[in-house]
Amino acid sequence: MSPDVTNIAKLSDGGSSEHQVQHRVDLFNKWNILPGSKVLEIGCGQGDFTLVAAYMVGDQGHVTAIDPAPLDYGAPMTLGEAQEKLKQTSIGDRMTFYESNLQQFLDSSASEQVYDYAMFVHSVWYLPSADVLQQMLAALRGRAKHLLIAEYSLDIRGNIAALPHLLAAISQAEFNSRGNTLNLDDNIQSIISQQMICALAQKEGWVLQKEDIVESPEGQEDARWEVHRVLSEGYSLRSESSGDSGRQDFAKALIDAVSQSTRVIGPNPKLRTLSTWLGSWV
Amino acid sequence: MSPDVTNIAKLSDGGSSEHQVQHRVDLFNKWNILPGSKVLEIGCGQGDFTLVAAYMVGDQGHVTAIDPAPLDYGAPMTLGEAQEKLKQTSIGDRMTFYESNLQQFLDSSASEQVYDYAMFVHSVWYLPSADVLQQMLAALRGRAKHLLIAEYSLDIRGNIAALPHLLAAISQAEFNSRGNTLNLDDNIQSIISQQMICALAQKEGWVLQKEDIVESPEGQEDARWEVHRVLSEGYSLRSESSGDSGRQDFAKALIDAVSQSTRVIGPNPKLRTLSTWLGSWV
Repeated sequence: MSPDVTNIAKLSDGGSSEHQVQHRVDLFNKWNILPGSKVLEIGCGQGDFTLVAAYMVGDQGHVTAIDPAPLDYGAPMTLGEAQEKLKQTSIGDRMTFYESNLQQFLDSSASEQVYDYAMFVHSVWYLPSADVLQQMLAALRGRAKHLLIAEYSLDIRGNIAALPHLLAAISQAEFNSRGNTLNLDDNIQSIISQQMICALAQKEGWVLQKEDIVESPEGQEDARWEVHRVLSEGYSLRSESSGDSGRQDFAKALIDAVSQSTRVIGPNPKLRTLSTWLGSWV
Repeated sequence: MSPDVTNIAKLSDGGSSEHQVQHRVDLFNKWNILPGSKVLEIGCGQGDFTLVAAYMVGDQGHVTAIDPAPLDYGAPMTLGEAQEKLKQTSIGDRMTFYESNLQQFLDSSASEQVYDYAMFVHSVWYLPSADVLQQMLAALRGRAKHLLIAEYSLDIRGNIAALPHLLAAISQAEFNSRGNTLNLDDNIQSIISQQMICALAQKEGWVLQKEDIVESPEGQEDARWEVHRVLSEGYSLRSESSGDSGRQDFAKALIDAVSQSTRVIGPNPKLRTLSTWLGSWV
Protein backbone atom coordinates (compact mmCIF):
# COMPACT_ATOMS: atom_id res chain seq x y z
CA MET A 1 0.00 0.00 0.00
CA SER A 2 1.35 3.44 -0.91
CA PRO A 3 2.02 6.02 1.84
CA ASP A 4 -0.71 8.18 0.24
CA VAL A 5 -3.31 5.47 0.81
CA THR A 6 -2.20 4.93 4.39
CA ASN A 7 -2.26 8.65 5.14
CA ILE A 8 -5.65 9.23 3.53
CA ALA A 9 -7.20 6.20 5.23
CA LYS A 10 -5.93 7.62 8.52
CA LEU A 11 -7.46 11.03 7.78
CA SER A 12 -10.74 9.33 6.85
CA ASP A 13 -10.77 7.70 10.30
CA GLY A 14 -12.98 4.77 9.31
CA GLY A 15 -15.15 6.76 6.90
CA SER A 16 -13.64 4.91 3.91
CA SER A 17 -12.06 1.46 3.93
CA GLU A 18 -8.49 1.18 2.64
CA HIS A 19 -9.88 -0.58 -0.46
CA GLN A 20 -12.08 2.41 -1.19
CA VAL A 21 -9.22 4.85 -0.65
CA GLN A 22 -6.88 2.73 -2.79
CA HIS A 23 -9.41 2.68 -5.63
CA ARG A 24 -9.86 6.46 -5.57
CA VAL A 25 -6.12 7.09 -5.43
CA ASP A 26 -5.76 4.79 -8.45
CA LEU A 27 -8.36 6.85 -10.32
CA PHE A 28 -6.79 10.15 -9.34
CA ASN A 29 -3.34 9.02 -10.42
CA LYS A 30 -4.54 8.03 -13.89
CA TRP A 31 -5.54 11.61 -14.61
CA ASN A 32 -2.15 13.29 -14.00
CA ILE A 33 -3.78 16.18 -12.15
CA LEU A 34 -1.30 18.89 -11.18
CA PRO A 35 -0.79 19.84 -7.53
CA GLY A 36 -2.42 23.19 -6.84
CA SER A 37 -5.41 22.44 -9.10
CA LYS A 38 -8.87 23.83 -8.47
CA VAL A 39 -11.30 20.93 -8.72
CA LEU A 40 -15.08 20.90 -8.93
CA GLU A 41 -16.46 17.52 -7.87
CA ILE A 42 -20.02 16.81 -8.90
CA GLY A 43 -22.03 14.34 -6.83
CA CYS A 44 -19.60 14.05 -3.93
CA GLY A 45 -21.97 12.17 -1.62
CA GLN A 46 -20.23 11.52 1.68
CA GLY A 47 -16.94 12.85 0.35
CA ASP A 48 -14.96 9.61 -0.15
CA PHE A 49 -13.34 10.96 -3.28
CA THR A 50 -13.30 14.56 -2.03
CA LEU A 51 -10.87 13.62 0.71
CA VAL A 52 -8.61 11.76 -1.72
CA ALA A 53 -8.62 14.66 -4.18
CA ALA A 54 -8.00 17.23 -1.42
CA TYR A 55 -5.00 15.24 -0.22
CA MET A 56 -3.59 14.78 -3.70
CA VAL A 57 -3.93 18.39 -4.95
CA GLY A 58 -1.74 19.50 -2.03
CA ASP A 59 -1.94 22.58 0.11
CA GLN A 60 -2.16 24.96 -2.84
CA GLY A 61 -5.09 23.06 -4.37
CA HIS A 62 -8.79 23.07 -3.52
CA VAL A 63 -11.78 20.82 -4.04
CA THR A 64 -15.26 22.28 -4.28
CA ALA A 65 -17.64 19.38 -3.80
CA ILE A 66 -21.36 19.60 -4.57
CA ASP A 67 -24.25 17.23 -4.12
CA PRO A 68 -27.98 17.99 -4.29
CA ALA A 69 -28.89 15.38 -1.65
CA PRO A 70 -30.18 16.76 1.68
CA LEU A 71 -27.54 16.78 4.41
CA ASP A 72 -29.61 14.39 6.51
CA TYR A 73 -29.52 11.76 3.74
CA GLY A 74 -27.35 8.66 4.02
CA ALA A 75 -26.59 5.88 6.47
CA PRO A 76 -24.96 4.92 8.79
CA MET A 77 -23.56 8.46 8.66
CA THR A 78 -25.50 11.26 6.96
CA LEU A 79 -23.93 13.38 4.25
CA GLY A 80 -23.79 16.32 6.62
CA GLU A 81 -22.07 14.36 9.38
CA ALA A 82 -19.56 12.79 6.99
CA GLN A 83 -18.72 16.10 5.35
CA GLU A 84 -18.39 17.85 8.70
CA LYS A 85 -15.99 15.16 9.86
CA LEU A 86 -13.82 15.65 6.76
CA LYS A 87 -13.78 19.39 7.38
CA GLN A 88 -12.31 18.69 10.84
CA THR A 89 -9.27 16.87 9.41
CA SER A 90 -5.89 18.55 9.01
CA ILE A 91 -6.67 19.11 5.29
CA GLY A 92 -10.26 20.21 5.93
CA ASP A 93 -9.65 23.70 4.61
CA ARG A 94 -8.88 22.28 1.15
CA MET A 95 -12.51 21.15 0.82
CA THR A 96 -15.72 23.13 0.52
CA PHE A 97 -19.06 21.33 0.39
CA TYR A 98 -22.28 22.73 -1.06
CA GLU A 99 -25.74 21.18 -1.00
CA SER A 100 -26.68 22.16 -4.51
CA ASN A 101 -27.38 20.92 -7.98
CA LEU A 102 -24.86 21.83 -10.66
CA GLN A 103 -26.76 24.54 -12.52
CA GLN A 104 -27.74 26.35 -9.33
CA PHE A 105 -24.20 26.17 -8.07
CA LEU A 106 -22.64 27.47 -11.28
CA ASP A 107 -25.15 30.34 -11.28
CA SER A 108 -24.31 31.24 -7.67
CA SER A 109 -21.63 33.60 -6.40
CA ALA A 110 -20.01 30.65 -4.62
CA SER A 111 -18.74 29.24 -7.90
CA GLU A 112 -15.43 30.08 -9.54
CA GLN A 113 -15.75 31.28 -13.09
CA VAL A 114 -13.48 28.49 -14.37
CA TYR A 115 -12.23 25.34 -12.60
CA ASP A 116 -9.18 23.38 -13.69
CA TYR A 117 -11.12 20.15 -13.53
CA ALA A 118 -14.78 19.20 -13.30
CA MET A 119 -15.10 15.60 -12.11
CA PHE A 120 -17.74 12.93 -11.80
CA VAL A 121 -16.36 10.02 -9.79
CA HIS A 122 -18.86 7.17 -9.53
CA SER A 123 -21.69 9.67 -9.57
CA VAL A 124 -22.97 9.15 -13.13
CA TRP A 125 -24.85 5.94 -12.35
CA TYR A 126 -26.51 7.80 -9.52
CA LEU A 127 -28.07 10.28 -11.94
CA PRO A 128 -31.71 9.62 -12.81
CA SER A 129 -31.13 9.67 -16.58
CA ALA A 130 -28.77 10.29 -19.47
CA ASP A 131 -30.71 13.50 -20.21
CA VAL A 132 -29.73 14.91 -16.84
CA LEU A 133 -26.08 14.08 -17.52
CA GLN A 134 -26.29 15.79 -20.90
CA GLN A 135 -27.66 18.99 -19.32
CA MET A 136 -24.82 18.96 -16.80
CA LEU A 137 -22.19 18.46 -19.48
CA ALA A 138 -23.71 21.41 -21.35
CA ALA A 139 -23.69 23.59 -18.24
CA LEU A 140 -20.01 22.82 -17.65
CA ARG A 141 -18.84 24.07 -21.07
CA GLY A 142 -16.63 27.09 -20.47
CA ARG A 143 -16.66 26.52 -16.71
CA ALA A 144 -13.92 23.85 -16.52
CA LYS A 145 -10.73 23.38 -18.51
CA HIS A 146 -11.00 19.61 -18.24
CA LEU A 147 -13.89 17.25 -17.79
CA LEU A 148 -13.10 13.97 -16.02
CA ILE A 149 -15.54 11.11 -15.59
CA ALA A 150 -14.99 7.79 -13.81
CA GLU A 151 -17.74 5.21 -13.78
CA TYR A 152 -18.03 1.43 -13.70
CA SER A 153 -17.60 -0.36 -16.99
CA LEU A 154 -20.32 -2.72 -18.23
CA ASP A 155 -17.52 -4.98 -19.41
CA ILE A 156 -16.45 -7.65 -16.91
CA ARG A 157 -13.26 -8.11 -18.97
CA GLY A 158 -13.20 -11.84 -18.68
CA ASN A 159 -13.42 -11.87 -14.90
CA ILE A 160 -16.32 -14.12 -13.99
CA ALA A 161 -16.19 -12.94 -10.37
CA ALA A 162 -17.39 -9.50 -11.52
CA LEU A 163 -20.53 -10.88 -13.22
CA PRO A 164 -22.72 -10.65 -10.07
CA HIS A 165 -21.89 -6.94 -9.79
CA LEU A 166 -22.78 -6.37 -13.46
CA LEU A 167 -26.09 -8.21 -13.14
CA ALA A 168 -26.92 -6.45 -9.86
CA ALA A 169 -26.30 -3.12 -11.58
CA ILE A 170 -28.62 -4.14 -14.44
CA SER A 171 -31.26 -5.18 -11.93
CA GLN A 172 -31.15 -1.89 -10.00
CA ALA A 173 -31.20 0.12 -13.23
CA GLU A 174 -34.23 -1.86 -14.39
CA PHE A 175 -36.13 -0.93 -11.26
CA ASN A 176 -35.14 2.71 -11.41
CA SER A 177 -36.03 2.99 -15.10
CA ARG A 178 -39.68 2.31 -14.24
CA GLY A 179 -41.72 5.49 -14.24
CA ASN A 180 -42.11 7.18 -10.85
CA THR A 181 -40.39 4.51 -8.82
CA LEU A 182 -36.93 5.99 -8.30
CA ASN A 183 -35.53 4.73 -5.04
CA LEU A 184 -32.71 6.98 -3.93
CA ASP A 185 -31.39 4.35 -1.55
CA ASP A 186 -30.16 2.39 -4.56
CA ASN A 187 -26.57 3.22 -5.38
CA ILE A 188 -27.38 2.58 -9.01
CA GLN A 189 -30.13 4.60 -10.62
CA SER A 190 -29.14 4.11 -14.25
CA ILE A 191 -26.42 2.26 -16.11
CA ILE A 192 -25.19 4.91 -18.49
CA SER A 193 -22.53 3.16 -20.57
CA GLN A 194 -19.18 4.63 -21.55
CA GLN A 195 -20.41 4.76 -25.16
CA MET A 196 -23.41 6.81 -24.05
CA ILE A 197 -21.25 9.13 -21.93
CA CYS A 198 -18.88 9.72 -24.86
CA ALA A 199 -21.76 10.43 -27.24
CA LEU A 200 -23.34 12.94 -24.83
CA ALA A 201 -20.03 14.72 -24.15
CA GLN A 202 -19.36 15.00 -27.86
CA LYS A 203 -22.83 16.47 -28.48
CA GLU A 204 -22.07 19.16 -25.92
CA GLY A 205 -18.75 20.10 -27.52
CA TRP A 206 -16.32 18.23 -25.29
CA VAL A 207 -13.36 16.67 -27.10
CA LEU A 208 -12.25 13.30 -25.79
CA GLN A 209 -8.54 13.20 -24.93
CA LYS A 210 -8.03 9.84 -23.28
CA GLU A 211 -9.78 6.75 -21.98
CA ASP A 212 -8.46 4.37 -19.34
CA ILE A 213 -9.54 1.33 -17.39
CA VAL A 214 -8.72 0.93 -13.71
CA GLU A 215 -9.19 -2.47 -12.15
CA SER A 216 -10.84 -2.52 -8.75
CA PRO A 217 -8.58 -3.60 -5.92
CA GLU A 218 -9.38 -7.05 -4.57
CA GLY A 219 -11.59 -6.61 -1.55
CA GLN A 220 -13.32 -3.46 -2.80
CA GLU A 221 -16.75 -3.79 -1.25
CA ASP A 222 -19.07 -2.37 -3.92
CA ALA A 223 -19.82 -5.70 -5.63
CA ARG A 224 -20.77 -7.25 -2.31
CA TRP A 225 -22.94 -4.29 -1.32
CA GLU A 226 -24.89 -4.23 -4.59
CA VAL A 227 -25.35 -8.00 -4.82
CA HIS A 228 -26.42 -8.22 -1.21
CA ARG A 229 -28.98 -5.49 -1.81
CA VAL A 230 -30.48 -7.22 -4.86
CA LEU A 231 -30.69 -10.58 -3.08
CA SER A 232 -32.40 -9.17 0.01
CA GLU A 233 -36.05 -10.07 0.59
CA GLY A 234 -37.11 -6.45 0.72
CA TYR A 235 -35.70 -5.85 -2.73
CA SER A 236 -37.89 -8.57 -4.30
CA LEU A 237 -40.96 -7.30 -2.48
CA ARG A 238 -40.28 -3.78 -3.69
CA SER A 239 -39.85 -5.03 -7.24
CA GLU A 240 -43.24 -6.73 -7.11
CA SER A 241 -44.95 -3.59 -5.84
CA SER A 242 -44.77 -1.57 -9.05
CA GLY A 243 -44.84 -2.07 -12.79
CA ASP A 244 -46.98 -4.47 -14.82
CA SER A 245 -46.60 -8.25 -14.67
CA GLY A 246 -44.29 -8.38 -17.72
CA ARG A 247 -41.95 -5.99 -16.04
CA GLN A 248 -42.13 -7.89 -12.75
CA ASP A 249 -41.35 -11.21 -14.44
CA PHE A 250 -38.38 -9.65 -16.16
CA ALA A 251 -37.15 -8.22 -12.87
CA LYS A 252 -37.61 -11.55 -11.10
CA ALA A 253 -35.53 -13.34 -13.74
CA LEU A 254 -32.78 -10.73 -13.33
CA ILE A 255 -32.70 -11.35 -9.59
CA ASP A 256 -32.48 -15.10 -10.23
CA ALA A 257 -29.62 -14.45 -12.66
CA VAL A 258 -27.77 -12.48 -9.97
CA SER A 259 -28.33 -15.30 -7.51
CA GLN A 260 -27.06 -17.96 -9.90
CA SER A 261 -24.05 -15.92 -10.92
CA THR A 262 -22.83 -15.87 -7.32
CA ARG A 263 -22.93 -19.67 -7.06
CA VAL A 264 -20.31 -20.38 -9.67
CA ILE A 265 -17.79 -18.33 -7.73
CA GLY A 266 -17.79 -21.01 -5.09
CA PRO A 267 -18.94 -21.67 -1.56
CA ASN A 268 -16.97 -18.72 -0.20
CA PRO A 269 -17.71 -16.17 -2.86
CA LYS A 270 -15.05 -13.64 -3.63
CA LEU A 271 -17.06 -11.16 -5.60
CA ARG A 272 -15.08 -8.73 -7.66
CA THR A 273 -16.12 -5.12 -8.16
CA LEU A 274 -16.44 -4.05 -11.81
CA SER A 275 -13.55 -2.21 -13.41
CA THR A 276 -13.84 1.53 -13.70
CA TRP A 277 -13.73 3.30 -17.03
CA LEU A 278 -12.24 6.81 -17.12
CA GLY A 279 -12.64 9.46 -19.76
CA SER A 280 -11.05 12.89 -19.95
CA TRP A 281 -12.13 15.73 -22.22
CA VAL A 282 -11.21 19.33 -22.96
CA MET B 1 -20.89 -37.87 -33.58
CA SER B 2 -23.34 -40.64 -32.74
CA PRO B 3 -25.09 -42.57 -35.54
CA ASP B 4 -28.38 -41.12 -34.26
CA VAL B 5 -27.19 -37.57 -34.89
CA THR B 6 -25.90 -38.46 -38.35
CA ASN B 7 -29.14 -40.21 -39.29
CA ILE B 8 -31.36 -37.42 -37.98
CA ALA B 9 -29.29 -34.69 -39.65
CA LYS B 10 -29.65 -36.64 -42.89
CA LEU B 11 -33.44 -36.87 -42.45
CA SER B 12 -33.53 -33.13 -41.69
CA ASP B 13 -31.85 -32.50 -45.05
CA GLY B 14 -30.39 -29.13 -44.10
CA GLY B 15 -33.36 -28.04 -41.98
CA SER B 16 -31.26 -28.35 -38.78
CA SER B 17 -27.48 -28.12 -38.50
CA GLU B 18 -25.68 -31.07 -36.93
CA HIS B 19 -25.03 -28.89 -33.86
CA GLN B 20 -28.74 -28.31 -33.46
CA VAL B 21 -29.52 -32.00 -33.89
CA GLN B 22 -26.74 -32.97 -31.48
CA HIS B 23 -28.10 -30.58 -28.84
CA ARG B 24 -31.62 -31.96 -29.12
CA VAL B 25 -30.44 -35.56 -29.00
CA ASP B 26 -28.47 -34.65 -25.84
CA LEU B 27 -31.65 -33.25 -24.30
CA PHE B 28 -33.76 -36.24 -25.31
CA ASN B 29 -31.22 -38.69 -23.89
CA LYS B 30 -31.21 -37.00 -20.49
CA TRP B 31 -34.87 -37.78 -20.04
CA ASN B 32 -34.73 -41.57 -20.46
CA ILE B 33 -37.86 -41.58 -22.58
CA LEU B 34 -39.01 -45.09 -23.47
CA PRO B 35 -39.33 -46.17 -27.10
CA GLY B 36 -42.99 -46.35 -28.09
CA SER B 37 -43.90 -43.26 -26.06
CA LYS B 38 -46.70 -40.88 -27.02
CA VAL B 39 -45.30 -37.36 -26.83
CA LEU B 40 -47.05 -34.00 -26.92
CA GLU B 41 -44.63 -31.27 -27.92
CA ILE B 42 -45.77 -27.73 -27.15
CA GLY B 43 -44.36 -24.90 -29.25
CA CYS B 44 -42.73 -27.03 -31.91
CA GLY B 45 -41.98 -24.17 -34.32
CA GLN B 46 -40.34 -25.55 -37.42
CA GLY B 47 -40.08 -29.00 -35.91
CA ASP B 48 -36.35 -29.21 -35.08
CA PHE B 49 -37.03 -31.13 -31.90
CA THR B 50 -40.08 -32.91 -33.33
CA LEU B 51 -37.89 -34.75 -35.82
CA VAL B 52 -35.40 -35.75 -33.13
CA ALA B 53 -38.16 -36.99 -30.82
CA ALA B 54 -39.90 -38.87 -33.64
CA TYR B 55 -36.67 -40.65 -34.51
CA MET B 56 -35.87 -41.49 -30.90
CA VAL B 57 -39.31 -42.85 -29.87
CA GLY B 58 -39.02 -45.43 -32.61
CA ASP B 59 -41.68 -46.81 -34.95
CA GLN B 60 -44.10 -47.58 -32.13
CA GLY B 61 -43.93 -44.04 -30.77
CA HIS B 62 -45.58 -40.84 -31.91
CA VAL B 63 -45.04 -37.11 -31.53
CA THR B 64 -47.97 -34.72 -31.62
CA ALA B 65 -46.51 -31.29 -32.17
CA ILE B 66 -48.48 -28.08 -31.71
CA ASP B 67 -47.72 -24.43 -32.26
CA PRO B 68 -50.15 -21.51 -32.42
CA ALA B 69 -48.06 -19.60 -34.99
CA PRO B 70 -49.60 -19.27 -38.48
CA LEU B 71 -48.15 -21.72 -40.97
CA ASP B 72 -46.86 -18.88 -43.13
CA TYR B 73 -44.73 -17.58 -40.21
CA GLY B 74 -40.96 -18.06 -40.17
CA ALA B 75 -37.96 -17.51 -42.41
CA PRO B 76 -36.16 -18.61 -44.53
CA MET B 77 -38.64 -21.51 -44.47
CA THR B 78 -42.14 -21.03 -43.10
CA LEU B 79 -43.48 -23.30 -40.37
CA GLY B 80 -45.83 -24.92 -42.87
CA GLU B 81 -43.07 -25.63 -45.39
CA ALA B 82 -40.71 -26.99 -42.72
CA GLN B 83 -43.35 -29.22 -41.18
CA GLU B 84 -44.47 -30.48 -44.58
CA LYS B 85 -40.89 -31.39 -45.41
CA LEU B 86 -40.57 -33.39 -42.18
CA LYS B 87 -43.79 -35.23 -42.97
CA GLN B 88 -42.20 -36.34 -46.26
CA THR B 89 -39.31 -38.11 -44.51
CA SER B 90 -39.24 -41.85 -43.92
CA ILE B 91 -40.40 -41.26 -40.33
CA GLY B 92 -42.98 -38.64 -41.27
CA ASP B 93 -45.89 -40.78 -40.10
CA ARG B 94 -44.57 -40.61 -36.53
CA MET B 95 -45.27 -36.86 -36.43
CA THR B 96 -48.54 -34.94 -36.48
CA PHE B 97 -48.53 -31.15 -36.54
CA TYR B 98 -51.38 -28.91 -35.44
CA GLU B 99 -51.64 -25.13 -35.70
CA SER B 100 -53.23 -24.59 -32.30
CA ASN B 101 -52.75 -23.22 -28.85
CA LEU B 102 -52.58 -25.75 -26.04
CA GLN B 103 -56.01 -25.27 -24.46
CA GLN B 104 -57.81 -25.41 -27.82
CA PHE B 105 -55.88 -28.50 -28.77
CA LEU B 106 -56.56 -30.34 -25.52
CA ASP B 107 -60.26 -29.49 -25.86
CA SER B 108 -60.38 -30.83 -29.43
CA SER B 109 -61.09 -34.35 -30.60
CA ALA B 110 -57.58 -34.48 -32.09
CA SER B 111 -56.01 -34.77 -28.66
CA GLU B 112 -55.35 -38.00 -26.80
CA GLN B 113 -56.85 -38.11 -23.34
CA VAL B 114 -53.44 -38.74 -21.76
CA TYR B 115 -49.93 -38.45 -23.24
CA ASP B 116 -46.88 -40.16 -21.83
CA TYR B 117 -44.92 -36.93 -21.98
CA ALA B 118 -45.77 -33.27 -22.46
CA MET B 119 -42.65 -31.33 -23.49
CA PHE B 120 -41.52 -27.78 -23.88
CA VAL B 121 -38.15 -27.72 -25.62
CA HIS B 122 -36.78 -24.18 -25.95
CA SER B 123 -40.31 -22.87 -26.26
CA VAL B 124 -40.76 -21.33 -22.79
CA TRP B 125 -38.73 -18.19 -23.55
CA TYR B 126 -40.92 -17.74 -26.60
CA LEU B 127 -44.03 -17.42 -24.43
CA PRO B 128 -45.21 -13.86 -23.81
CA SER B 129 -45.29 -14.21 -20.03
CA ALA B 130 -44.97 -16.44 -16.99
CA ASP B 131 -48.77 -16.22 -16.58
CA VAL B 132 -49.28 -17.91 -19.92
CA LEU B 133 -46.89 -20.71 -18.91
CA GLN B 134 -48.78 -21.17 -15.66
CA GLN B 135 -52.09 -21.52 -17.49
CA MET B 136 -50.54 -24.13 -19.77
CA LEU B 137 -49.10 -26.11 -16.86
CA ALA B 138 -52.56 -26.06 -15.27
CA ALA B 139 -54.21 -27.25 -18.47
CA LEU B 140 -51.76 -30.16 -18.73
CA ARG B 141 -52.60 -31.60 -15.30
CA GLY B 142 -54.17 -35.02 -15.87
CA ARG B 143 -53.38 -34.90 -19.58
CA ALA B 144 -49.75 -36.05 -19.41
CA LYS B 145 -47.99 -38.56 -17.16
CA HIS B 146 -44.77 -36.55 -17.27
CA LEU B 147 -44.02 -32.92 -17.83
CA LEU B 148 -40.61 -32.16 -19.36
CA ILE B 149 -39.19 -28.67 -19.84
CA ALA B 150 -35.89 -27.69 -21.41
CA GLU B 151 -34.88 -24.03 -21.52
CA TYR B 152 -31.69 -22.02 -21.44
CA SER B 153 -30.18 -21.38 -18.04
CA LEU B 154 -29.47 -17.82 -16.91
CA ASP B 155 -26.26 -19.18 -15.39
CA ILE B 156 -23.22 -18.98 -17.68
CA ARG B 157 -21.50 -21.47 -15.35
CA GLY B 158 -18.15 -19.77 -15.44
CA ASN B 159 -17.92 -19.75 -19.22
CA ILE B 160 -17.21 -16.19 -20.24
CA ALA B 161 -17.90 -17.04 -23.89
CA ALA B 162 -21.58 -17.53 -23.01
CA LEU B 163 -21.97 -14.04 -21.53
CA PRO B 164 -22.93 -12.36 -24.82
CA HIS B 165 -25.79 -14.85 -25.23
CA LEU B 166 -27.01 -14.16 -21.68
CA LEU B 167 -26.91 -10.40 -22.17
CA ALA B 168 -28.57 -10.66 -25.59
CA ALA B 169 -31.37 -12.68 -23.98
CA ILE B 170 -31.77 -10.03 -21.27
CA SER B 171 -31.90 -7.33 -23.94
CA GLN B 172 -34.59 -9.06 -26.00
CA ALA B 173 -36.63 -9.82 -22.89
CA GLU B 174 -36.40 -6.15 -21.88
CA PHE B 175 -37.85 -5.07 -25.20
CA ASN B 176 -40.61 -7.64 -25.12
CA SER B 177 -41.58 -6.82 -21.54
CA ARG B 178 -42.62 -3.33 -22.67
CA GLY B 179 -46.38 -3.04 -23.00
CA ASN B 180 -47.78 -3.63 -26.49
CA THR B 181 -44.47 -4.00 -28.23
CA LEU B 182 -44.10 -7.76 -28.53
CA ASN B 183 -42.07 -8.56 -31.59
CA LEU B 184 -42.65 -12.15 -32.60
CA ASP B 185 -39.52 -12.21 -34.73
CA ASP B 186 -37.45 -12.23 -31.54
CA ASN B 187 -36.58 -15.74 -30.48
CA ILE B 188 -36.68 -14.55 -26.90
CA GLN B 189 -39.88 -12.99 -25.61
CA SER B 190 -39.28 -13.46 -21.90
CA ILE B 191 -36.52 -14.90 -19.75
CA ILE B 192 -38.47 -17.11 -17.41
CA SER B 193 -35.87 -18.55 -15.04
CA GLN B 194 -35.67 -22.14 -13.86
CA GLN B 195 -36.66 -20.94 -10.37
CA MET B 196 -39.76 -19.31 -11.83
CA ILE B 197 -40.64 -22.42 -13.88
CA CYS B 198 -40.29 -24.64 -10.81
CA ALA B 199 -42.46 -22.33 -8.71
CA LEU B 200 -45.21 -22.23 -11.35
CA ALA B 201 -45.17 -26.01 -11.86
CA GLN B 202 -45.41 -26.57 -8.13
CA LYS B 203 -48.36 -24.17 -7.87
CA GLU B 204 -50.19 -26.24 -10.48
CA GLY B 205 -49.60 -29.52 -8.67
CA TRP B 206 -46.61 -30.88 -10.60
CA VAL B 207 -44.01 -32.68 -8.50
CA LEU B 208 -40.41 -32.12 -9.55
CA GLN B 209 -38.54 -35.39 -10.10
CA LYS B 210 -35.21 -34.33 -11.55
CA GLU B 211 -33.20 -31.42 -12.82
CA ASP B 212 -30.27 -31.56 -15.22
CA ILE B 213 -27.94 -29.27 -17.09
CA VAL B 214 -26.91 -29.98 -20.65
CA GLU B 215 -23.98 -28.04 -22.08
CA SER B 216 -24.46 -26.72 -25.59
CA PRO B 217 -22.22 -28.33 -28.18
CA GLU B 218 -19.45 -26.07 -29.42
CA GLY B 219 -20.61 -24.48 -32.62
CA GLN B 220 -24.30 -24.38 -31.68
CA GLU B 221 -25.48 -21.28 -33.47
CA ASP B 222 -28.03 -19.77 -31.05
CA ALA B 223 -25.60 -17.47 -29.26
CA ARG B 224 -24.40 -16.07 -32.56
CA TRP B 225 -27.95 -15.59 -33.86
CA GLU B 226 -29.16 -13.73 -30.78
CA VAL B 227 -26.07 -11.56 -30.39
CA HIS B 228 -26.10 -10.68 -34.07
CA ARG B 229 -29.75 -9.68 -33.80
CA VAL B 230 -29.17 -7.40 -30.82
CA LEU B 231 -26.16 -5.73 -32.43
CA SER B 232 -27.95 -5.02 -35.72
CA GLU B 233 -28.81 -1.42 -36.55
CA GLY B 234 -32.49 -2.19 -36.94
CA TYR B 235 -32.64 -3.54 -33.40
CA SER B 236 -31.40 -0.27 -31.89
CA LEU B 237 -33.79 1.76 -34.02
CA ARG B 238 -36.68 -0.43 -32.92
CA SER B 239 -35.67 -0.06 -29.28
CA GLU B 240 -35.74 3.72 -29.61
CA SER B 241 -39.21 3.69 -31.16
CA SER B 242 -41.16 2.74 -28.04
CA GLY B 243 -41.03 3.21 -24.29
CA ASP B 244 -40.08 6.33 -22.36
CA SER B 245 -36.58 7.75 -22.29
CA GLY B 246 -35.62 5.95 -19.06
CA ARG B 247 -36.49 2.66 -20.67
CA GLN B 248 -34.65 3.55 -23.85
CA ASP B 249 -31.49 4.53 -21.95
CA PHE B 250 -31.61 1.24 -20.07
CA ALA B 251 -32.04 -0.67 -23.33
CA LYS B 252 -29.18 1.22 -24.96
CA ALA B 253 -26.85 0.36 -22.08
CA LEU B 254 -27.82 -3.31 -22.39
CA ILE B 255 -26.95 -3.27 -26.09
CA ASP B 256 -23.59 -1.67 -25.25
CA ALA B 257 -23.02 -4.38 -22.64
CA VAL B 258 -23.67 -7.08 -25.26
CA SER B 259 -21.25 -5.36 -27.61
CA GLN B 260 -18.52 -5.11 -25.00
CA SER B 261 -18.99 -8.68 -23.85
CA THR B 262 -18.18 -9.95 -27.33
CA ARG B 263 -14.85 -8.10 -27.40
CA VAL B 264 -13.23 -9.97 -24.56
CA ILE B 265 -13.72 -13.23 -26.38
CA GLY B 266 -11.14 -12.09 -28.89
CA PRO B 267 -10.80 -10.96 -32.44
CA ASN B 268 -12.37 -14.14 -33.79
CA PRO B 269 -15.19 -14.54 -31.34
CA LYS B 270 -16.23 -18.05 -30.49
CA LEU B 271 -19.49 -17.33 -28.81
CA ARG B 272 -20.88 -20.12 -26.72
CA THR B 273 -24.57 -20.88 -26.48
CA LEU B 274 -25.96 -20.93 -22.93
CA SER B 275 -26.37 -24.25 -21.20
CA THR B 276 -29.82 -25.76 -21.11
CA TRP B 277 -31.61 -26.52 -17.89
CA LEU B 278 -34.00 -29.51 -17.84
CA GLY B 279 -36.73 -30.27 -15.39
CA SER B 280 -39.02 -33.27 -15.23
CA TRP B 281 -42.23 -33.55 -13.20
CA VAL B 282 -45.02 -36.02 -12.57
